[in-house]
Amino acid sequence: MSMVSDLAAIVGEDWVITAREQTARYLADETADAVRPRPAENVVLIKPSSAEEVAEVLKLANREKTPVFVRGGGTGICGGAVPIADGILLSTERLDGILEIDKDNLMVVAGAGVPFGNMLKAVEEAGLFFPPHPGDEGAHVGGLVACNAGGTRAVKYGVIRNFVRGLEVVTPTGDIINLGGKLLKNNQGFDLMHLLINSGGALGVITKVIFRLCPKFNSSGTLIISYDERHKAINTVPKILQSGVVPLAIEYVERDVIEISAKRLNMEWPAKKGNTFLIVILTGDSEDEVYAQGEKVSTICEGNNAVDILIAERREEQANILKIRSEVYSSLKSNIADVLDITVPPASIGEMMDKVDEIAAKFNIKIPTYGHAADGNLHPHLLADLVEKGLLREVKRQIYAEAIKMGGVITGEHGLGVIRLPDLDLYPDKKMWELMRGIKAVFDPNNILSPGIGVL
Amino acid sequence: MSMVSDLAAIVGEDWVITAREQTARYLADETADAVRPRPAENVVLIKPSSAEEVAEVLKLANREKTPVFVRGGGTGICGGAVPIADGILLSTERLDGILEIDKDNLMVVAGAGVPFGNMLKAVEEAGLFFPPHPGDEGAHVGGLVACNAGGTRAVKYGVIRNFVRGLEVVTPTGDIINLGGKLLKNNQGFDLMHLLINSGGALGVITKVIFRLCPKFNSSGTLIISYDERHKAINTVPKILQSGVVPLAIEYVERDVIEISAKRLNMEWPAKKGNTFLIVILTGDSEDEVYAQGEKVSTICEGNNAVDILIAERREEQANILKIRSEVYSSLKSNIADVLDITVPPASIGEMMDKVDEIAAKFNIKIPTYGHAADGNLHPHLLADLVEKGLLREVKRQIYAEAIKMGGVITGEHGLGVIRLPDLDLYPDKKMWELMRGIKAVFDPNNILSPGIGVL
Repeated sequence: MSMVSDLAAIVGEDWVITAREQTARYLADETADAVRPRPAENVVLIKPSSAEEVAEVLKLANREKTPVFVRGGGTGICGGAVPIADGILLSTERLDGILEIDKDNLMVVAGAGVPFGNMLKAVEEAGLFFPPHPGDEGAHVGGLVACNAGGTRAVKYGVIRNFVRGLEVVTPTGDIINLGGKLLKNNQGFDLMHLLINSGGALGVITKVIFRLCPKFNSSGTLIISYDERHKAINTVPKILQSGVVPLAIEYVERDVIEISAKRLNMEWPAKKGNTFLIVILTGDSEDEVYAQGEKVSTICEGNNAVDILIAERREEQANILKIRSEVYSSLKSNIADVLDITVPPASIGEMMDKVDEIAAKFNIKIPTYGHAADGNLHPHLLADLVEKGLLREVKRQIYAEAIKMGGVITGEHGLGVIRLPDLDLYPDKKMWELMRGIKAVFDPNNILSPGIGVL
Repeated sequence: MSMVSDLAAIVGEDWVITAREQTARYLADETADAVRPRPAENVVLIKPSSAEEVAEVLKLANREKTPVFVRGGGTGICGGAVPIADGILLSTERLDGILEIDKDNLMVVAGAGVPFGNMLKAVEEAGLFFPPHPGDEGAHVGGLVACNAGGTRAVKYGVIRNFVRGLEVVTPTGDIINLGGKLLKNNQGFDLMHLLINSGGALGVITKVIFRLCPKFNSSGTLIISYDERHKAINTVPKILQSGVVPLAIEYVERDVIEISAKRLNMEWPAKKGNTFLIVILTGDSEDEVYAQGEKVSTICEGNNAVDILIAERREEQANILKIRSEVYSSLKSNIADVLDITVPPASIGEMMDKVDEIAAKFNIKIPTYGHAADGNLHPHLLADLVEKGLLREVKRQIYAEAIKMGGVITGEHGLGVIRLPDLDLYPDKKMWELMRGIKAVFDPNNILSPGIGVL
């Protein structure tokens, strides 16, 4: 294959890999097996070391009309990192330098291939704080931007988008562009930076990221608030948000799901009463501030049918609660066929959960559901038995249709990737997809970058 | 003109206005006279009452290949609302309904033509709070989104973009699309909503806006911190931001400028010592919290060369300080040829001000400069005498070139509009303008919507 030698001339021989045993682990991501797309047969893996090399590769790919797929940490769960056609798989892992932590501007500049955990560590060592935490610390920072990752801490700080200040991007035609910068305000024409955020790798290869940082919070506390009934828990959430307290996170879980995670970790879920729980994380500049917030939240919950309130102040206690919560997906994963990511207006979340239950009852199945309660972002888990029963697609589409009916979307934080494209017909509006296709064609006239991913 | 009757058939006879004496006040915006574009001669003003009527008008305009310009409150200062070619001027003023204040979801739904002040009042009456405050309350909410307005309060809450959750937009081809919704997370493909924010009216007519709201803050305080030298003031800003205190606003002003505004208002600038000032506004959930923040900020400033610190706690005192600050532009306006809006990395703001001074000294002119210190957003005022001296363009371009050299942009919050397009050649990167033009062509194949505005 002549392309292999052309690629070697750009990135160096050592960084062009064709042997299937060496590329194998690059051909999947964390998407559940039942819905993950199958990788193509003939995939050349390359590992460029700079934006310039990425640009040369993309120019070559345009000349040869060869697809290029981009891979970061491979932690996505919508099939967006799987090379679904023969061509080049471009891993950004060598763009792994934390280039600067700029304390005066409160910014970090990092290569796209920096693992999220490494960046967090470096930021913490500099005495600063990066608020969003979308979960898997093996994610790469370029991928966090490409999929606009969310996570539990969006209540106080919003999603990754809010923290992106600048991007270096190689366009599909091989031009290197710099969008934004160390800037807090920027009205420099149509916002290409915001268009690249959540473009799923389809509009350009992100090679460098500038994130805004915050000072460390000095104090935190975690509350588990127990209820005997779902709606009592869910109905408390807007009351907390209206009170003036802005928690870092408000999570909703039910006992059956959280106990599975605790058991797997050989840990104990500390709340003994109630069946459904809100986990509320509070942060502040001082212990007094967090204490005052905790008092306020407790009073609201007591007045709204909570059956128990557990307050964790010690760092270790708080970490344990989070550990159990954050491992729910891993605990269920072996039994999962698909994880949904519906998002509805936050006040409709109880109604949405009821709809999921109704659908489960109709098909006589179980659908464990938990999520980011204050964000209206729910993750119903479709279990493996749906595949055997031939119900996976139908159940999913019924849940999607209900979410859309409530003014929601089928993905709040995971992205369209590959696996959600076939269900976009559920939306009444067709024009927006047409505009997205038009934008894709402007950036990528030969459709060589991530074809079939992120856009209909 | 046959178009007049076609337009009357769509919006009704009463809402099609051709007499120049009735259209006159619609032909300018708040841009300084010296740089404001001249309106075209043959302009038909129309006032549609719904998105559907807007859609019909745009379809007609496509058939007739007639330009359509969009006007909100006309408070912009980059010439973006001036009809610069013969055609239709579409005022959104009749889309003036506050459609819903949704307390459970903490959202407001408003027609694009709602004056900002009206929305603020309705939100306040509902016991809630809309954080951004870009200045002129006569602005319309559609315009705030179209230009991604900024203002003083961006330090704590960010710019308008952060609060937009949903938009109803009529595309240039006359399709009505709904982007986002009452949603806090939304990864539904390329983010057309964020692309429309700051599109300057060139990618669609915004007809409805959904904004996120916050609970009211219970307490606030305003500090004026006096310094005898600019850099001592500016160098304190990152120290405040690193401390964990997040002020609502940090403004920088110098005595000569602020005294002009105070004098015009028949008020007194309360700070007697020092020549340069930081105005720091603190908000919090309780008086205790604000007091603790104020103590922390004071301690930092005392340790960093402040010569005096004045703390205003009473509502009226605080309002007076803000009034004097917010009227600086109006006070200088009669003597202003152009207001710049450069934005640099926040830590470079002192250096940028020095460059402005150097340029002023070189040309032997005065350039009053003040701005949003924590955002790196500066407004050098080019005065009327530069026009007589024939220096306006040259001085502007030299300031722009310095900002770009520091990694900055020529507009942080005012937008490109019409007046900044001729200076985009100062950027080394050309590809991004090409992509913007491509996007414009996708949305507006006949280039009928706001031609010549917002994009090169």
